[in-house]
Amino acid sequence: MSYYSPSIEKLIESFEHLPSIGHKTAARLAFYILNASEEETNEFIKSIENAKKNLKYCSKCYNISDTDPCNICSNVKRDQNTICVVEDVRDIIAIEKTHEFKGVYHVLHGSISPMNGIGPNDIKIKELLARINENTKEIIIATNPRVEGEATAMYISKLLKPLGVTVTRIAHGIPIGGDLEYTDEVTLSKALEGRREI
Amino acid sequence: MSYYSPSIEKLIESFEHLPSIGHKTAARLAFYILNASEEETNEFIKSIENAKKNLKYCSKCYNISDTDPCNICSNVKRDQNTICVVEDVRDIIAIEKTHEFKGVYHVLHGSISPMNGIGPNDIKIKELLARINENTKEIIIATNPRVEGEATAMYISKLLKPLGVTVTRIAHGIPIGGDLEYTDEVTLSKALEGRREI
Repeated sequence: MSYYSPSIEKLIESFEHLPSIGHKTAARLAFYILNASEEETNEFIKSIENAKKNLKYCSKCYNISDTDPCNICSNVKRDQNTICVVEDVRDIIAIEKTHEFKGVYHVLHGSISPMNGIGPNDIKIKELLARINENTKEIIIATNPRVEGEATAMYISKLLKPLGVTVTRIAHGIPIGGDLEYTDEVTLSKALEGRREI
Repeated sequence: MSYYSPSIEKLIESFEHLPSIGHKTAARLAFYILNASEEETNEFIKSIENAKKNLKYCSKCYNISDTDPCNICSNVKRDQNTICVVEDVRDIIAIEKTHEFKGVYHVLHGSISPMNGIGPNDIKIKELLARINENTKEIIIATNPRVEGEATAMYISKLLKPLGVTVTRIAHGIPIGGDLEYTDEVTLSKALEGRREI
């Protein structure tokens, strides 16, 4: 039995569809919207509509962007011949925040995962191959350090090696501020394996 | 400096305005919306618009409802002469879930809080007085057990006592499943004060 009015119930349900939002949070958000000003609500709806309308994939790197090509691909100061391959658009933001990388990106939109029925043709690997030419200096594979990300990294590296392109993988190891004692053995063995002279 | 496209940035900001939503959650929600189907997005927007359009206050109890009077006030099976006074619409749901209360409600839409500049005239106390007549059996004050809620309860009870209406306050005590050892002293002294013969 529902205790709320139908319109509130419907609104709460809508919020519950969003990821990581449970029933109680959905109710809190719904009541916030109900108490919000007409203006704020319209602003909220408009931002959703605009985002859905304006955003498209960059035809070069498959980043989500208001413009095509995206502002990273169209930035002449960036090295177009060093391509960092990531699984998701949000991974670009994570790397951009380091201020360390001055190349461009390629978003795969997923990783190879036979368990979920995702093969190499379901992600943007063909599109990555098409971008590579004689000027390409390095492909940095920054997929997530999970089974699927590793498999995808291996697959791409096997495809690219014969083309004579340098393919690198981001380092695995103990995170800064981490604790040896509490580091899992796989990470620790990766950290040992990747040791460098100092 | 922003790393996202303007439309994404705007959408994330919109979600950040919602209560208990931080930047990371806002980004996750925004990307969910971006990847959602046209249909699901429209459904979401529609539920917001409908809720804002259809919902109104019940002119008797000030509950939020699709209908006026609300389905509690218009329910002939409920005792219209026992009124439970709550601060917020969500408190009605909390009490309804107990299935114990068969009377009607009165929503104050806040509590007296001089610190926040909220006086007796800023909440629906006048409207409560207007509902009371010779048939009124009992006013149960179920405001929150905080300073503001207690002050509001005291204020209402002082107003109603001269009218000869029975005014009661919900019990304070140790929550079920609670632990004496970890109960704060105020709650514990309220629990002792409110002891009953068994």
